[in-house]
Amino acid sequence: MRLLEERIRRDGKVLPGDILKIDSFLNHQIDVKLMEEIGKEFYSLFKDRDPSKILTIESSGIAIAAEASRCFGYIPVVFAKKTVAANMAKDVYEAKEHSYTRNIEYTVQVAKEYLNENDRVLILDDFLANGEAMNSLIEICNQAGAKIVGCGSVVGKTYQPGEKRIRDLGHDVEVLARVKAMHDDGTIEFE
Amino acid sequence: MRLLEERIRRDGKVLPGDILKIDSFLNHQIDVKLMEEIGKEFYSLFKDRDPSKILTIESSGIAIAAEASRCFGYIPVVFAKKTVAANMAKDVYEAKEHSYTRNIEYTVQVAKEYLNENDRVLILDDFLANGEAMNSLIEICNQAGAKIVGCGSVVGKTYQPGEKRIRDLGHDVEVLARVKAMHDDGTIEFE
Repeated sequence: MRLLEERIRRDGKVLPGDILKIDSFLNHQIDVKLMEEIGKEFYSLFKDRDPSKILTIESSGIAIAAEASRCFGYIPVVFAKKTVAANMAKDVYEAKEHSYTRNIEYTVQVAKEYLNENDRVLILDDFLANGEAMNSLIEICNQAGAKIVGCGSVVGKTYQPGEKRIRDLGHDVEVLARVKAMHDDGTIEFE
Repeated sequence: MRLLEERIRRDGKVLPGDILKIDSFLNHQIDVKLMEEIGKEFYSLFKDRDPSKILTIESSGIAIAAEASRCFGYIPVVFAKKTVAANMAKDVYEAKEHSYTRNIEYTVQVAKEYLNENDRVLILDDFLANGEAMNSLIEICNQAGAKIVGCGSVVGKTYQPGEKRIRDLGHDVEVLARVKAMHDDGTIEFE
């Protein structure tokens, strides 16, 4: 997605530890106009899949999922909750996510009442690097018996295993900006 | 806001501990069409205040703020981050929020680069009960020297101190659904 790549080139910051910071328009401050364009792009990529629900994960996935929902005729958005405390609730689906950035393990939860075997789920998230977050959302769909109709990520690092990991699980993955290299001078290369 | 009150009456759940659960359309599953209507309502209430930015707090405030942003001509949304670990970063404004529901203290943070003395800030959030979250956002604006042009909450409990607390700080507060009583049989009364 050209518009997004240009924005990442312009405003993204390459930080030590292979971190791409896009806080100024996606992860902390949000450019809602850009989110609209991203929502439309996910719609055009997945419009023939007839999703009944969009599943994402707090917090940065929410605005993206809401914009995509509008394009799909306002299908419900469910955002998985992340907690560092495992509280073993009975009424939730639960999966683990290891955050490589923060080096902690999250418990990812979705209430059972909001996902079931009749759902056709489009999974959307902001970043796909190691695939930990998306994998936890897939596990939750599997626990619910829901059908996953597609997986989309706004940004991905193609030199990290996430995209292949999700494909190897048998899912279609669309990544709007595929980063193939980041350099110390701040330049970012896309596929 | 009639539409919202009807939805809360229909789908809200009154739980022990004076908890109003509106997970099915706002706090976990999101009804994006309703969020649009909420965004429009906040616009009509604050349109003469000329905000330059909307400040909210993760996670449930994000969809609301994004919808309001669209009405205000796509002004930037900044969502404050909540953490249980205080990490004393130098480049952030920071305030404390005590969660009565969970009985823990959060550190609320906004990066300094996204809020400054030139900003005219509309603060939006999902719930106003004791006013802890909104108060933390006000403190952060004060630290930034930003002007607060208004405060809006989707739901408020008028028998709890939040609304008065924010007004007593000198701010205009608009609450779209003002709960005056909740009963054990599940009925909810509005002002």
